[in-house]
Amino acid sequence: MTFPEVEFIGAVEILGTFAFAVSGAIAAIRNRYDVFGVLVLAFVTAVGGGTLRDMMVGNMPVSWLTNNLAIGSATLGFLVAIAMRSQIKRFQTWILFFDAAGLGLFTVMGTQVGLEAGMNIGISVTLGTITGCFGGVIRDVLSGTRPLIFRKEIYAMASFIGGLLYVGMLAITHAVIWAQLVGIVSIIVMRMIALNKGWRLPQIKYEV
Amino acid sequence: MTFPEVEFIGAVEILGTFAFAVSGAIAAIRNRYDVFGVLVLAFVTAVGGGTLRDMMVGNMPVSWLTNNLAIGSATLGFLVAIAMRSQIKRFQTWILFFDAAGLGLFTVMGTQVGLEAGMNIGISVTLGTITGCFGGVIRDVLSGTRPLIFRKEIYAMASFIGGLLYVGMLAITHAVIWAQLVGIVSIIVMRMIALNKGWRLPQIKYEV
Amino acid sequence: MTFPEVEFIGAVEILGTFAFAVSGAIAAIRNRYDVFGVLVLAFVTAVGGGTLRDMMVGNMPVSWLTNNLAIGSATLGFLVAIAMRSQIKRFQTWILFFDAAGLGLFTVMGTQVGLEAGMNIGISVTLGTITGCFGGVIRDVLSGTRPLIFRKEIYAMASFIGGLLYVGMLAITHAVIWAQLVGIVSIIVMRMIALNKGWRLPQIKYEV
Repeated sequence: MTFPEVEFIGAVEILGTFAFAVSGAIAAIRNRYDVFGVLVLAFVTAVGGGTLRDMMVGNMPVSWLTNNLAIGSATLGFLVAIAMRSQIKRFQTWILFFDAAGLGLFTVMGTQVGLEAGMNIGISVTLGTITGCFGGVIRDVLSGTRPLIFRKEIYAMASFIGGLLYVGMLAITHAVIWAQLVGIVSIIVMRMIALNKGWRLPQIKYEV
Repeated sequence: MTFPEVEFIGAVEILGTFAFAVSGAIAAIRNRYDVFGVLVLAFVTAVGGGTLRDMMVGNMPVSWLTNNLAIGSATLGFLVAIAMRSQIKRFQTWILFFDAAGLGLFTVMGTQVGLEAGMNIGISVTLGTITGCFGGVIRDVLSGTRPLIFRKEIYAMASFIGGLLYVGMLAITHAVIWAQLVGIVSIIVMRMIALNKGWRLPQIKYEV
Repeated sequence: MTFPEVEFIGAVEILGTFAFAVSGAIAAIRNRYDVFGVLVLAFVTAVGGGTLRDMMVGNMPVSWLTNNLAIGSATLGFLVAIAMRSQIKRFQTWILFFDAAGLGLFTVMGTQVGLEAGMNIGISVTLGTITGCFGGVIRDVLSGTRPLIFRKEIYAMASFIGGLLYVGMLAITHAVIWAQLVGIVSIIVMRMIALNKGWRLPQIKYEV
């Protein structure tokens, strides 16, 4: 039972890292960073969330230091972003889909790390949300933009809700792989619908 | 002797976390972030300093991962900021007071962590200052502002001086709770006077 | 054999920390930060890269918490930057030279940490590059600038290539100190030539 699950997570993790790397590389290209800067931002976006999670939990050395997949996927994402830069608009939907898949996967993985360490549900899901969202926050800070997750189509909240669904399914079915699937797919679906419909959370109105 | 001290710190920590959460939430509301973005920024501001301290010292999992008070206080700060957003100006003094209390408490706690780990005075107080100030730095970076602590009424320096006073009192009296009180109160007093009088440190003049 | 090597690294580390502190202080002065803000930015720039490296690898408490050299060098860099602020232009070449020396030293030290922990070459050199570059990235983020390393004269790439040369020399000669010298000197030379000739990496062109 563990074996296919691990492979499944492995495959989705590669896709997610790849997707985040593409989104980082595109942000850097738009900022007219030089070619190595594009590579660096691709890498930082791809590994940022998992790195912060590992440092907070105490899982050191952090995961990208002990396997080659992260650097490999990030480099691939960089190359693909460079190659298809003139068709960025055409592939926009795919990029957003990969980004949503990455968000889903990293959220579920981060939540799982929290649960395994004996943290309670709220904290585990918060950890998952940070893992999923932080790479994008770094990307935006290093691009000189106020982070998109704070003001664009439902992003962090999709991650949080998906994390809760994962925990709920796990409690009900005790089937890790199905709970993971539900968590990841629900986040992808929420993101794609939010993007399509332009769903946003309300801003807080105030007068001073 | 330990018991009331721990309770005292516990109570001030909750107030401090709450105050920092309010200040983060208000910054997010001013930036027109969406409602979940306001919650995220409240949380990050509230736990940022302690998280960095724990990661640097090697106290993992970092403290908000192992108790519910931080998430609880931050959520409360978020709710209060939302509820009183139209009276932000009226409550401005209270917000600044809570923020000063948070700064004082986190500075003293961070300094204490350093001393307990056998670090020397200068390093321990620096650690305390980072613990006290870093949440606000993250808040400002994620709000797209150059950090206030670098250019506004004496902030980091109040934290540093308060940390030194705490260590000095501790060396003289060996009474932890009194030393803590002196450190925390002195930081609050310095902050409130600085805000009232508009005290600022001089800028470095230069011509190029 | 170990003794002179350690002394050598010690001396270059002090110079590197000092140089990074100067560059952080100057950025803060240009931003019209107050005098304590200048000190804080000098310190953060000087210790940022090593702190992130130590947190990612699991070397806690991070190194500046356990020796006084980092705080001492950073304070000295702060004082020197203040003292010579009216001659910043005149000393510009020296500042860039020290910065290059710091980049070289921190890159080699970071790479070495990775190799000693059994990480592979690509990951070790990436760790070295992060160690060398991250302080400057923090400096730029806290100054409200998009990080220079992404868009200015070859910086991160010089660090990466120098890290590779260090590893290559180590594999060929097994003489740690010579490999270190080659790594550090090559980074300094690449930086100084790049600055002199205005070498830049190409930007990625794109039309949307």
